[in-house]
Amino acid sequence: MGCHVHNGLIFFSFTYILVGMNRTRTRKNPDQTRQNLVQAAYWEIYRHGFRSAGLDRILAQAGVTKGALYHHFPSKTALGHAVVEEIIQPLIHRIWIRPLETAESPLEALAAIGQAMEGNLSAGACELGCPLNNLAQEMSPIDEGFRKRLDTIFQLWREAIARALREGQQLAQVRSDIDPDRSAAFIIAAIEGSIGMAKNTQNSEPWRACKEGLERHFESLLMA
Amino acid sequence: MGCHVHNGLIFFSFTYILVGMNRTRTRKNPDQTRQNLVQAAYWEIYRHGFRSAGLDRILAQAGVTKGALYHHFPSKTALGHAVVEEIIQPLIHRIWIRPLETAESPLEALAAIGQAMEGNLSAGACELGCPLNNLAQEMSPIDEGFRKRLDTIFQLWREAIARALREGQQLAQVRSDIDPDRSAAFIIAAIEGSIGMAKNTQNSEPWRACKEGLERHFESLLMA
Repeated sequence: MGCHVHNGLIFFSFTYILVGMNRTRTRKNPDQTRQNLVQAAYWEIYRHGFRSAGLDRILAQAGVTKGALYHHFPSKTALGHAVVEEIIQPLIHRIWIRPLETAESPLEALAAIGQAMEGNLSAGACELGCPLNNLAQEMSPIDEGFRKRLDTIFQLWREAIARALREGQQLAQVRSDIDPDRSAAFIIAAIEGSIGMAKNTQNSEPWRACKEGLERHFESLLMA
Repeated sequence: MGCHVHNGLIFFSFTYILVGMNRTRTRKNPDQTRQNLVQAAYWEIYRHGFRSAGLDRILAQAGVTKGALYHHFPSKTALGHAVVEEIIQPLIHRIWIRPLETAESPLEALAAIGQAMEGNLSAGACELGCPLNNLAQEMSPIDEGFRKRLDTIFQLWREAIARALREGQQLAQVRSDIDPDRSAAFIIAAIEGSIGMAKNTQNSEPWRACKEGLERHFESLLMA
């Protein structure tokens, strides 16, 4: 069973931005040039990793010159850091954090995590994996600038899950003998591990298996 | 809390092999040359990833010439595939699969997974992550030769866990309403995700949290 990265939930709005980017390419608006660079870099890094990302491909995709690149970013690393802050952080917020914030109850928040998993499954992140975790695995040991920016996103995500679990404890819906913060770390690890398993097989079978496992885990957190 | 890759359970026997390698460097034994190359490549790939692995550093570490390299391996990719088959597969077998095979009961097998997690924690794979999952995340989408070899290892691991769960069901120790194979996929995802979380923070805190989560998950699989 194959998956396609460009069809579906996660990537839809980015496809839209890329379409917009092409249309505005000739305007020579510095803000737009910068935005085009960051978006092109996001896709290049997502496909190839940061160290194998080709600056020439990024420039061609963004339709800008090398001079314009270095006007906006002192280095490839600075461009990569901007990708984390300006693309990946809002992406993770939209897919994984906002549904927890807008849920009307802790149980709805836990259900929202399952729905986001299902959305990812349909979207087919199994081909290229999670852009947050890909960069974390590649860059955390070797670039503290990447590591801290990525860790900020993981912490925001973890806190959003922990908050839902704490509220669930206050409402006597979630077991009082679990540590919400630690439990949140495990839930994120399970999600990222599941995406990674699907990336290795290049199909969605292990992801479906993992989604079941996560749902069973949620059940184990609830009051009997 | 920092971690050190070279001290501890996982890496100890490889350190031993590396010591042996230096001693035999001058013998010009073709088998030994080949083995030195694969071992040096393992460490270089583990530290830098496959695409950023430096052939010059591998040659210097192995103490062999480029000519000798191409005598044994037609390409860097072929050398990388040998690393998966000859180093990573036995490593994963020793740490994660054999303890399941030698366990005297299904419950002991599940406990052995927790012990392997603890061993990893002490060994400090939080700095550089899991060599199996690192390569899977980097290479699965772009090299089918890597992907299939890595997938073989994941499948062996998954089957070993699934077997323990099936035996547990037969003994009425594990709940009959879980699917052993799918559950095994989730357990591996959770383990690999946990190692990845620790790699991102570069410390063991999330790993401890995840180990607790995994133990709670095991409890949820058992008959009440």
